Amino acid sequence: TFPQIGRYRQKGILERLDAGEIVIGDGGFVIALEKRGYVKAGPWTPEAAVEYPEAVRQLHREFLRAGSNVLQTFSFYASEDKLENRGNYVAEKISSQSVNEAACDIAKEVAKEGDALVAGGVSQTPSYLSGKDEVGVKAIFQKQLEVFVKKNVDFLIAEYFEHVEEAVWAVETLKVSGKPVAATMCIGPEGDLHGVPPGECAVQLVKAGASIIGVNCHFDPETCLRTVELMKKGLESAKLKAHLISQPLAYHTPDCGKQGFIDLPEFPFALEPRIVTRWDVQKYAREAYNLGIRYIGGCCGFEPYHIRAIAEELATERGFLPLASEKHGSWGSGLSMHTKPWVRARARKEYWENLLPASGRPYCPSMSKPDGWGVTKGTAELMQQKEATTEQQLKELFKKQKFKSNIVA
Amino acid sequence: TFPQIGRYRQKGILERLDAGEIVIGDGGFVIALEKRGYVKAGPWTPEAAVEYPEAVRQLHREFLRAGSNVLQTFSFYASEDKLENRGNYVAEKISSQSVNEAACDIAKEVAKEGDALVAGGVSQTPSYLSGKDEVGVKAIFQKQLEVFVKKNVDFLIAEYFEHVEEAVWAVETLKVSGKPVAATMCIGPEGDLHGVPPGECAVQLVKAGASIIGVNCHFDPETCLRTVELMKKGLESAKLKAHLISQPLAYHTPDCGKQGFIDLPEFPFALEPRIVTRWDVQKYAREAYNLGIRYIGGCCGFEPYHIRAIAEELATERGFLPLASEKHGSWGSGLSMHTKPWVRARARKEYWENLLPASGRPYCPSMSKPDGWGVTKGTAELMQQKEATTEQQLKELFKKQKFKSNIVA
Amino acid sequence: TFPQIGRYRQKGILERLDAGEIVIGDGGFVIALEKRGYVKAGPWTPEAAVEYPEAVRQLHREFLRAGSNVLQTFSFYASEDKLENRGNYVAEKISSQSVNEAACDIAKEVAKEGDALVAGGVSQTPSYLSGKDEVGVKAIFQKQLEVFVKKNVDFLIAEYFEHVEEAVWAVETLKVSGKPVAATMCIGPEGDLHGVPPGECAVQLVKAGASIIGVNCHFDPETCLRTVELMKKGLESAKLKAHLISQPLAYHTPDCGKQGFIDLPEFPFALEPRIVTRWDVQKYAREAYNLGIRYIGGCCGFEPYHIRAIAEELATERGFLPLASEKHGSWGSGLSMHTKPWVRARARKEYWENLLPASGRPYCPSMSKPDGWGVTKGTAELMQQKEATTEQQLKELFKKQKFKSNIVA
Amino acid sequence: TFPQIGRYRQKGILERLDAGEIVIGDGGFVIALEKRGYVKAGPWTPEAAVEYPEAVRQLHREFLRAGSNVLQTFSFYASEDKLENRGNYVAEKISSQSVNEAACDIAKEVAKEGDALVAGGVSQTPSYLSGKDEVGVKAIFQKQLEVFVKKNVDFLIAEYFEHVEEAVWAVETLKVSGKPVAATMCIGPEGDLHGVPPGECAVQLVKAGASIIGVNCHFDPETCLRTVELMKKGLESAKLKAHLISQPLAYHTPDCGKQGFIDLPEFPFALEPRIVTRWDVQKYAREAYNLGIRYIGGCCGFEPYHIRAIAEELATERGFLPLASEKHGSWGSGLSMHTKPWVRARARKEYWENLLPASGRPYCPSMSKPDGWGVTKGTAELMQQKEATTEQQLKELFKKQKFKSNIVA
Repeated sequence: TFPQIGRYRQKGILERLDAGEIVIGDGGFVIALEKRGYVKAGPWTPEAAVEYPEAVRQLHREFLRAGSNVLQTFSFYASEDKLENRGNYVAEKISSQSVNEAACDIAKEVAKEGDALVAGGVSQTPSYLSGKDEVGVKAIFQKQLEVFVKKNVDFLIAEYFEHVEEAVWAVETLKVSGKPVAATMCIGPEGDLHGVPPGECAVQLVKAGASIIGVNCHFDPETCLRTVELMKKGLESAKLKAHLISQPLAYHTPDCGKQGFIDLPEFPFALEPRIVTRWDVQKYAREAYNLGIRYIGGCCGFEPYHIRAIAEELATERGFLPLASEKHGSWGSGLSMHTKPWVRARARKEYWENLLPASGRPYCPSMSKPDGWGVTKGTAELMQQKEATTEQQLKELFKKQKFKSNIVA
Repeated sequence: TFPQIGRYRQKGILERLDAGEIVIGDGGFVIALEKRGYVKAGPWTPEAAVEYPEAVRQLHREFLRAGSNVLQTFSFYASEDKLENRGNYVAEKISSQSVNEAACDIAKEVAKEGDALVAGGVSQTPSYLSGKDEVGVKAIFQKQLEVFVKKNVDFLIAEYFEHVEEAVWAVETLKVSGKPVAATMCIGPEGDLHGVPPGECAVQLVKAGASIIGVNCHFDPETCLRTVELMKKGLESAKLKAHLISQPLAYHTPDCGKQGFIDLPEFPFALEPRIVTRWDVQKYAREAYNLGIRYIGGCCGFEPYHIRAIAEELATERGFLPLASEKHGSWGSGLSMHTKPWVRARARKEYWENLLPASGRPYCPSMSKPDGWGVTKGTAELMQQKEATTEQQLKELFKKQKFKSNIVA
Repeated sequence: TFPQIGRYRQKGILERLDAGEIVIGDGGFVIALEKRGYVKAGPWTPEAAVEYPEAVRQLHREFLRAGSNVLQTFSFYASEDKLENRGNYVAEKISSQSVNEAACDIAKEVAKEGDALVAGGVSQTPSYLSGKDEVGVKAIFQKQLEVFVKKNVDFLIAEYFEHVEEAVWAVETLKVSGKPVAATMCIGPEGDLHGVPPGECAVQLVKAGASIIGVNCHFDPETCLRTVELMKKGLESAKLKAHLISQPLAYHTPDCGKQGFIDLPEFPFALEPRIVTRWDVQKYAREAYNLGIRYIGGCCGFEPYHIRAIAEELATERGFLPLASEKHGSWGSGLSMHTKPWVRARARKEYWENLLPASGRPYCPSMSKPDGWGVTKGTAELMQQKEATTEQQLKELFKKQKFKSNIVA
Repeated sequence: TFPQIGRYRQKGILERLDAGEIVIGDGGFVIALEKRGYVKAGPWTPEAAVEYPEAVRQLHREFLRAGSNVLQTFSFYASEDKLENRGNYVAEKISSQSVNEAACDIAKEVAKEGDALVAGGVSQTPSYLSGKDEVGVKAIFQKQLEVFVKKNVDFLIAEYFEHVEEAVWAVETLKVSGKPVAATMCIGPEGDLHGVPPGECAVQLVKAGASIIGVNCHFDPETCLRTVELMKKGLESAKLKAHLISQPLAYHTPDCGKQGFIDLPEFPFALEPRIVTRWDVQKYAREAYNLGIRYIGGCCGFEPYHIRAIAEELATERGFLPLASEKHGSWGSGLSMHTKPWVRARARKEYWENLLPASGRPYCPSMSKPDGWGVTKGTAELMQQKEATTEQQLKELFKKQKFKSNIVA
């Protein structure tokens, strides 16, 4: 009933949002490419942009087909200090600059196939955590920005920040380029790791120059929406305006602590039972829309079919379906020809909306206790003081806690 | 400690198995490509081989990198009667022959990149279920075989059969080509849908000419291994010899009935919480090896990283790691540099081996009751009689049962 | 290693608490006697004190043996308006006065067997909820008090109040008698149903004359302790002093809303899987003690063995074990003679402390969504206005919500 | 709609069953009295019959009120060898004979209050397990029988046997008295510990002289019914006739191994989350009835309200309700006057029948792996040989296994 289109007439990100359009983001590159064999879990660095461009290109293409209006350059953790920090893992010949440039080239090439926008991104730095000052940290961002400007990306995203102070520095750096800036923090309703609540984070980011603000990563869709709602209220109280964005995990994490899914015992190699279904994503997309969020995407765990679910849920509001819907019957309608009557009975919205899917794991719990419990407060305090949290200090905190709740004897 | 190689000196499948080598299969194409946006759930037909060859090529390449020694042509459900049966979904211009040919071309092209073997496959047909006789059903297989012979694939697989009678017909047809034939049934320990136990199925398949026999799809790794074990015992009792193969689901399905995961309420759009971890796969690979199975692969749900897990678990036995292990620290060792001490503590085998991963879904059960419960017997009986099971007959059986155990009111 | 005693030299409740002694309360009469066949779920009225005194006596005796230092008269919901309100269920011949008198007689008789204290109790009234004013509500409490004074109970408890206003009226009424008054509300960390936070509730109760304040019923031990902690902080801020009491449910209720377990779909006939173990109770007793709570008991679901677990956990602090410990090996030591070595291996503290007990119910979820979701706010508002919430009004609110999350289709 | 009666005109057990009447058994004494503080878990011996007769009397009375037509004497494990075997725990003055006599007296006294039958019981002996021969083992049973004859109980039950050989010896011993004999084994569908299948056990028991045969303890209602069904089929094949009895656990144990709930890690102090609801019992009673079982009771975990549930489910067939139903609204009807509309909505059969109750324990699994896994076979073999299984032998078997699946690190 809707046309299937991957094209969108070329307009800037703010033009679209200002006009009330829904903008669909893309999904999680490092997790998806780790499963495909091109990213190493642990370092999570994006040198595949140089090494295996066809694999990165294919993933961009799948998100584009699925409905993404924005392709983020595959340059997460590609800041110079991060690549160095991760040691000699990446061959010496692959510089930060070459990764960022390759990432821009690939994204731009695919974006043209469907006329999507390309966003260059920066994220939190080891330099900030180890106590570098504003000038030092901004210099890191500046280096990446230079590539994005040279490659002329459409807009910029400062994403995955746990401290609003650093996020503000990023926004201020990016803003100089004159391109629109979006800023997302990886925080939950409790706020940033210095204790700044979401509403106040939002205010600081907008004052720093961000036109689009919200959250990404670290928490499940439900938690992210609650956080963006608090940001929205913060802006309303301060009588500020900005567009809202949410790019959550594709994992159910009701049991997270303040620092998100990193602390869950399943991170990152046993998150499978937490993966959200396409129906969970449709619910998320609807609720995000109802909250007034118009830039709706995903982060770690979001595969192309999850992004397609956003596009399908909001097809009525947008007036069209994504290209990949040629291969997807809405609400399971593709099952309507199945030979078994009870499978045919699943070809309807009510079925999938109401199903409570089983884990097939009766020997496993349904929730975990985050590791780092008990020390979280200590760690946060140490971090607040921006002391060089020594290994020894953390080890001592660590010893004090019981942390392996799901580990069997 | 092991060299990472994707190459294997070119030897035939039987040469390898006869020499005691481990042969690693590939994973599930239709499920993986459905998530990527190229296959439609419901019909599950492989016309993407013609429409989007680059997407199919990329997936083959990922499996190759992950360690697959066999690339199966993406021709599942590409028999003429199946494509017709699914109606006008696939454009008239895409013939069964063109799909099978394209699938062969792509697989062969990628196989050369790593020197893997290419296997052409046939699977159960609508013609058999609707009562066609031996001559009619064999004619269907013959058509596909002609393409495989023309394209000169390395060997043949008759897979995904619920009735040993049809599987035998397939093996007999394929055998004529002179190429080695593997045969896998999608059955569990209870046997085929006519009630033939696994041991007897194995005997019939070997007598029909199969050199490699086992199971694929429909059940989780644990269940598949129990079934192959029964097949092995059947062969031993009959003093027959064959190589063993297992290609299970990548889903936990302890709650399946006789007809496997199709009947689980979560099939096919809410199976996420059941997805196996890489560690589950390592356990599976080890157990398969211990059982004497030497052709070890996967089916629906197996992604490239699952295949890599087989290759990593058996690296000692094989003497090398797959190419994709350049991006994977064994047993989580990639986490050893993480800034958080409790994440670093996860960089070890004992941690992942013993973790009981939480679902993050406290409102969901851990097991489901299969749909079709209660009617299963009736259905099976109808099918045994090979009566034209009318829609009306099934509907009546269907009405008698309570089947929506996980559906909330 | 400890003497087992049921006797305690006769001292008043305040003498004991002022001296720093631990006072152990009793458990839940209506739930225990419902299971034994003497109380009707729904009305929950205590006419069994008249009808089946031997059954009530036996339960008192079991609690006494288990370590209870206080026997509460079995007069819960025995106010005149409540009994009338429940219609003609209780034979006309059983008056409120006769129930209260019988309850006092039985408790006093058993208390002497072990020299425990007897507490007379009043609880929230239908009169308050239906809008009666202070004078009217106090008159209800006054009637019960007259019996308690006549029978000369040792002290008084105003318990199970959802509104601090009514609890204050109860305390003021009871206080006139000159006997010590304890006051417990059935609220959680969110406070009373008018939105008064726990700390403020505590302040008002102490100012009204209560010497002992805390919570009972409605929430699990963990939640109750968090609530008492908030009360304690409220008193500290107000520079007030009182003894602390907690008498929680013996059910795990992490999924409760503001109004507690009544709203859980399992209440009251399917709470079994939530029942706490004796080890859960030992953990609770320890945490209560660490929080400074010295009057530690239970409410609905607490059976004699749960009370014994409090007494055993705190045996070191108290210097003795209860009589019933003659029939209980501490931390499972009674298993040390078992014929099976793996059962003998359970005869130790570490085993039971760390066991995560399975439900044996793989088709059930681990948490529920409380009924009344969505309307809770509306209901609370209606109640706040003390309007006569008509059936019609509630029905309309009710219709608006989805409330049967665990009910299968 | 039904009269509530506790009386039954006095007829013998076989008269009743031969006439097609439903006979309701009682519940589990040792578990119930352990919770009340009168039985020590581990030894599980019934010396309370002498020490605390009023507590035993009260429990009998509750079962009688709940609908029990048979009161079993509280003499479980009261054989001489068992009491000795448990060491000096029970004071020397309490002889096996005095316990058995007291147990008879109490049961007979209460039975008269409602005109129920009294059954004297014997169960498996340490003598058998340690290799005593037929003469020696029968002598043990003979001693208990002498008390039952002297006290003139109505009939006899040989219950809780894991080996049919010993059960047959018990039946043969009891049969001499001329009283009707019932025999129940604590086995599951896999049969007795020597590998004798249930059908064959049934045949041997009937041939030995039992008029009523079935199972008790060790497994949940569902498993017990499957076992009795196999027994029934065994009798039919052998053209033998007997009445059927089932007295299962009141715990869900889908995860049991061959030796039942003893091996579950939760036994015996953390079984709470497995306790069945009254609605589970109604379902059990209906299925037992449909299977042709006419003596329907319970074992460990069955409390008076569980027995009442049997009586209520079968009230139509029997024509009356038990006395305790005066305090129980059928299918939750007692909630129909509740002030909250969503609680009133629970006052109906469909609600409770379809509810899937949550455990409130999201950190716990839903199934456990039985301890003794892996060694079970070895243990069983050792036992089959009736060798004196030395501690050392068992310890070695024990070491080989992983057995603490639910124990957190």
